[in-house]
Amino acid sequence: MKASRFILHARLAADTVPVAELPLSRVLLMNDARFPWLILVPRRAGVRELFELGARNRRQLIEEIALCGRALLEASRFSKLNIGALGNLVPQLHVHVVARTPGDDAWPGPVWGSGKPRPYSVVRRAALLRTLRLSIKARSRAR
Amino acid sequence: MKASRFILHARLAADTVPVAELPLSRVLLMNDARFPWLILVPRRAGVRELFELGARNRRQLIEEIALCGRALLEASRFSKLNIGALGNLVPQLHVHVVARTPGDDAWPGPVWGSGKPRPYSVVRRAALLRTLRLSIKARSRAR
Repeated sequence: MKASRFILHARLAADTVPVAELPLSRVLLMNDARFPWLILVPRRAGVRELFELGARNRRQLIEEIALCGRALLEASRFSKLNIGALGNLVPQLHVHVVARTPGDDAWPGPVWGSGKPRPYSVVRRAALLRTLRLSIKARSRAR
Repeated sequence: MKASRFILHARLAADTVPVAELPLSRVLLMNDARFPWLILVPRRAGVRELFELGARNRRQLIEEIALCGRALLEASRFSKLNIGALGNLVPQLHVHVVARTPGDDAWPGPVWGSGKPRPYSVVRRAALLRTLRLSIKARSRAR
């Protein structure tokens, strides 16, 4: 059952701040200073699983994941990416792109279910958002 | 630093059994009867992150993920997919495609770090492998 119009799931809206709009996905920053953590949400109503997207959208999605992954590593001192599409709690298709580094708060386990988020300070979040937006914009242009 | 030839990481080889060879990826079944769980490993030496694959390989990879996801749901009574590329313990790029269902051994948390695997019986594993191979083959032909 597809809704006619894309509306961001309330839980994703509550946990994040908007970063950018890519051709397919809305890019969000998780408000959790433990990990540099983006969430990509394809703006397609009613989609829960990757295979429900068409092939063209899947191709676009994986390019946007790669782009956001590079931007995230560039914006942080973290060294590894974790990418995940789970959706056990929030059915709307969304892809986590998380920067990790040995010794971080959940290493080497997954970030999902790893405890209470630690919200950013307003100043630190603004600085990270600025860096991420510039990097995503530059990488989008270069494509 | 790229090695010249693809060799499956020893940890992945130890935890899984081979299912199929797709154009890009080797498909493996995790020997854990708690969850129907495939792992796709692109046969490209030295690749750790998604963005290190070229765009053509990324496009192929997401198609193979979608194909394996559908085959896995079809072969099980599970209703949801979890997809993840972590690599915190095994650096070789590999993508988990896991079928989940409410009430399974880790629900609604992630499968990674969710406790000790429960190996399949020989009979059950053989039956699942047969079903998966037929489904993957049929879906590969249909493309």
